[in-house]
Amino acid sequence: MSVFPLLSTQHDHTPAYTETLGAPLGGSVRVRVRTTLSVTAVHLKFVRVGEIESVPAREVTPLGDAPGRWFEADLPVHEGRVRYSWQLNFTNDHLHLTALGLHRTRRGFRSWFTYLTGHAAPEWAWESVFYQIFPDRFRNGDPGNDVQTGEYVYGDRVVERVEWSTPIDSWGDIHGHYGGDLNGVTQALPYLTDLGVTGLWLTPIFVSPSNHRYDITDYRHVDPHLGGDGAWDELVRASEQAGVRIVLDGVFNHVGNENALFRAAMDAEDAPERAMFTWRDEPGKLPYHAFFDVPTLPKIDYRNGAAVQEFFSGEESVVRHWLRRGAAGWRLDVAHMIGTGGTDEDNLPLHRTLKRAAREERPDAYVFGERFYDPEHALDGQGEDGSMNYHGFGLPVMQWLARANMTFEPSALGGEELTEILWDAYHALPAQVALSMFNVLESHDIPRALYRLGNDRTRFLAGVTLLMGYVGVPCTYYGSEVGVTQSRDGSMPWCRESMPWDESQWDTDLRGRMKALIAVRRKSLALQRGGLRFLHAEEDAVAFLREYTHADGRAERAAVIASRRPGAHEVTLSLPDGEWRDAVTGEVLRGGHVTLDASGGRVLLG
Amino acid sequence: MSVFPLLSTQHDHTPAYTETLGAPLGGSVRVRVRTTLSVTAVHLKFVRVGEIESVPAREVTPLGDAPGRWFEADLPVHEGRVRYSWQLNFTNDHLHLTALGLHRTRRGFRSWFTYLTGHAAPEWAWESVFYQIFPDRFRNGDPGNDVQTGEYVYGDRVVERVEWSTPIDSWGDIHGHYGGDLNGVTQALPYLTDLGVTGLWLTPIFVSPSNHRYDITDYRHVDPHLGGDGAWDELVRASEQAGVRIVLDGVFNHVGNENALFRAAMDAEDAPERAMFTWRDEPGKLPYHAFFDVPTLPKIDYRNGAAVQEFFSGEESVVRHWLRRGAAGWRLDVAHMIGTGGTDEDNLPLHRTLKRAAREERPDAYVFGERFYDPEHALDGQGEDGSMNYHGFGLPVMQWLARANMTFEPSALGGEELTEILWDAYHALPAQVALSMFNVLESHDIPRALYRLGNDRTRFLAGVTLLMGYVGVPCTYYGSEVGVTQSRDGSMPWCRESMPWDESQWDTDLRGRMKALIAVRRKSLALQRGGLRFLHAEEDAVAFLREYTHADGRAERAAVIASRRPGAHEVTLSLPDGEWRDAVTGEVLRGGHVTLDASGGRVLLG
Repeated sequence: MSVFPLLSTQHDHTPAYTETLGAPLGGSVRVRVRTTLSVTAVHLKFVRVGEIESVPAREVTPLGDAPGRWFEADLPVHEGRVRYSWQLNFTNDHLHLTALGLHRTRRGFRSWFTYLTGHAAPEWAWESVFYQIFPDRFRNGDPGNDVQTGEYVYGDRVVERVEWSTPIDSWGDIHGHYGGDLNGVTQALPYLTDLGVTGLWLTPIFVSPSNHRYDITDYRHVDPHLGGDGAWDELVRASEQAGVRIVLDGVFNHVGNENALFRAAMDAEDAPERAMFTWRDEPGKLPYHAFFDVPTLPKIDYRNGAAVQEFFSGEESVVRHWLRRGAAGWRLDVAHMIGTGGTDEDNLPLHRTLKRAAREERPDAYVFGERFYDPEHALDGQGEDGSMNYHGFGLPVMQWLARANMTFEPSALGGEELTEILWDAYHALPAQVALSMFNVLESHDIPRALYRLGNDRTRFLAGVTLLMGYVGVPCTYYGSEVGVTQSRDGSMPWCRESMPWDESQWDTDLRGRMKALIAVRRKSLALQRGGLRFLHAEEDAVAFLREYTHADGRAERAAVIASRRPGAHEVTLSLPDGEWRDAVTGEVLRGGHVTLDASGGRVLLG
Repeated sequence: MSVFPLLSTQHDHTPAYTETLGAPLGGSVRVRVRTTLSVTAVHLKFVRVGEIESVPAREVTPLGDAPGRWFEADLPVHEGRVRYSWQLNFTNDHLHLTALGLHRTRRGFRSWFTYLTGHAAPEWAWESVFYQIFPDRFRNGDPGNDVQTGEYVYGDRVVERVEWSTPIDSWGDIHGHYGGDLNGVTQALPYLTDLGVTGLWLTPIFVSPSNHRYDITDYRHVDPHLGGDGAWDELVRASEQAGVRIVLDGVFNHVGNENALFRAAMDAEDAPERAMFTWRDEPGKLPYHAFFDVPTLPKIDYRNGAAVQEFFSGEESVVRHWLRRGAAGWRLDVAHMIGTGGTDEDNLPLHRTLKRAAREERPDAYVFGERFYDPEHALDGQGEDGSMNYHGFGLPVMQWLARANMTFEPSALGGEELTEILWDAYHALPAQVALSMFNVLESHDIPRALYRLGNDRTRFLAGVTLLMGYVGVPCTYYGSEVGVTQSRDGSMPWCRESMPWDESQWDTDLRGRMKALIAVRRKSLALQRGGLRFLHAEEDAVAFLREYTHADGRAERAAVIASRRPGAHEVTLSLPDGEWRDAVTGEVLRGGHVTLDASGGRVLLG
């Protein structure tokens, strides 16, 4: 099947085509379709109590000046998730329009449009550009709170203070602390806002013995080595003034083994905390379930109601506590593993509970899971708003650009298959969920993009162009904008070098180009809220269209084109009609058959 | 993405590649992959607690003489449904093998292979060829039990006795009874076994006022007009001797309005039966939920435990009763609608309850739902064994052959898109479920295939070839084998003409050809139990391969090729190497590039 739906026929979630998003249960929503095809009739199909029902669509006066005839119908929103599609009849043929495109057969329900009744998405996130900070490595704002060598022992090793800028040189060392802190983040706000950033994702900041802090001792306090609770409050105050929101990292699958709940559970067989973990008595195994059987990371058992209350839903839950204290949302660590009885069972109901509590506390809280693999089954709109988009964006895009996957296995993946996997993952999501996906090219868990691309700036900028242009919330990784890279293959710890603050070490040209792309993203409604269609794919280049059509029919469009070649790459493709302007250079092109240099990526607005 | 997976690399559910199906929880299963590609390493990937784990596959001595190297690994079966895939590494590339084929990106979990732990399929059904009988129209074995004109009133009309062979001439007449009965089915067993049939699906046979009997008054007794319980027992006895099994039609979404449970519920507000239905008080609406608001078809509410017991799980439930009395399984009417509170909520848990009861009663009971639309979400192996395959076989195949859909809307659907939709629907199902799908080209609910094809025998036989060749259990519709057709467009009642028993009215040539195709199906393990790969598609022709590989590596193969042209159609395609023999004509061909006449359909065995 082609991933290039005919541009002849259009229906999406934007106002001209879907009058309201998230309408309340029991009513109906006016939906429209536009087509340049010679239809004899148009019907709206939808699923109710398992049956497909059909209503005729009536032709209406065209909205705006896009070519084609418009038809509209009223979609009954009688359940939480309404599947619908369009049927177009012709004298000698008929077609089905689903989220997958136009086909002659009725596609599976997975590919139908999905209306999320009563759904409210955290729309501020759609307008945001995020920046991920690994606090120990971003900026040392207060050397007075640094971890000191020998200050404490974790596992079987004492911690060490490491001098800023020391290249990482030993594998798996979670005992080396560089001294970055929240004070440093506050100090860097002018730097970040200058870059155009409006959202921060901080990896864990709570009291924890390791430098990554995914093994949390105390969820209720910011680690004193990051400046403690006071530094948090100061950061919240300053970031609010700067127009920057902060998403925290919620580690809710497991605690650190120094956590008081786990200590109490270990200390007494009759402790009530014991039921918060899963115990077993099997030769050669830990007595409790743990994250990948790592002894320091005992897994929380949410069969236990007190655990659900403590972390998610209780009046004083961790989720609620930090939203009250200024966090704008939660990134959920290993969201796919959370469950009951040492497994991932009941994962989706638990995420629904978590999200409900978060929204009660802060109606626009942005909640998204780390789901490193295909997250589709979890994205029905009831749990997380979206998920980290490794599966449907970051991993395949980088595999294509780098000609190797994240473990450096070589790959001959071409642009055609890249667009297939992106389209497959995208089209199956309800629009509000797709727009809430959290897109990254790189993170503290996978190798730096620049390194994977041989530190080639042109190819890296092609990646950044795709990131800023794609559906979902873009997030860059600290330091990439000035050229931070790795010293060798691998992911952690090599992707966690300290951020240079000596500007002579910066690649200011790279930073300027990223800043320009971020600015494009922040001013384009099409990029923030538009639909998606692929326009073109060849071995070394891909292109897609983003489109947002206002209630009056006026369309805002962006065409995003990227090549993976380090040098100039003339790509020929068909752009929709009209005038297009390069969002960075201002160059003007006319739609139709065009040839342009796609190296480094292009965004055209039209 | 191509629907033609490379033949270079093979893994499926048959013994050489999957040592055991349905292994018990907690153990492991040896799985193998064969490839002619120059791999440097092979890994097995599987999902556990939401994470993808990877184990190296070891190279083993090749099984059989198929080309390529073999690798094997042990798949831990630690949960009910284990998703797995293979990764093949090369010097400069790597590929993922999923049920969808070979790709350079990691596909979504929907496309991974699925191992159903502890699953037992009704394998006898895989070996069966079914024949659907609409009892009132198949054969009148005892005129003494016929409905007589004026015998009773149903709705606002008296019933009428209609003379056998009277052409159907009035729309929607459910009051005309032709007099067919179970005595007639018993009498016809020699006819059916001569044709090669080994399974019967009878549309409802219980006490019911209409001629279709989907409005059941008494689920515990066979309608006296069909010969009553005695005729059933006689049919069971005779069919067992003839090697024919009978699947009954279970109408569990709604009852008929003359049903005693519903009468009791209507008669007294405090009757316990009242809770078996869903009541409402809305202006202009029935006081109870009903199938499409038809007053005679009140919908059962399975929130009520007594309803669940009565129909599904009680010791004397309807499901159990008829399995005890000789039925081999249940076809479940509008399976997708069954639910609680007047909706389809709790549909899947209810089907699990039904299936569990059926299997307790008869361990090889075959339970499949009428799911007229995409059934994928219901086919996780826990509920129905399979479903009627309208979505993934019958509707698209007939749309392609007939160049129009089932409502006679013209369609330009070509062979390429046909193979896409078939492959999309097939590949996402666990193998045991795919093999248990109930395939039909036509039924009492949709127009007759022959009629849709302009009564052209060649095109109809192309459809029968696809039916007998495809994955799943084939079922023909009474009378089609001798040329029964319709008098005009539409589905019911036009597709329900009475069966002619005057042999001079039969198309004996057609019957002979269908008999030959049924015989091919019944002797080919590849057709009954093999995997599926598409080999070829063009506008007017498609071809696929079925393959079953024994534990010793010996492969049984069948290639199925069909054209939709009424006249000769020379199709050129690539057949796998080796010798192939036309299963009907005996013609011998060699694999590789071949050209053959595909009109009417071909099955080649090799």
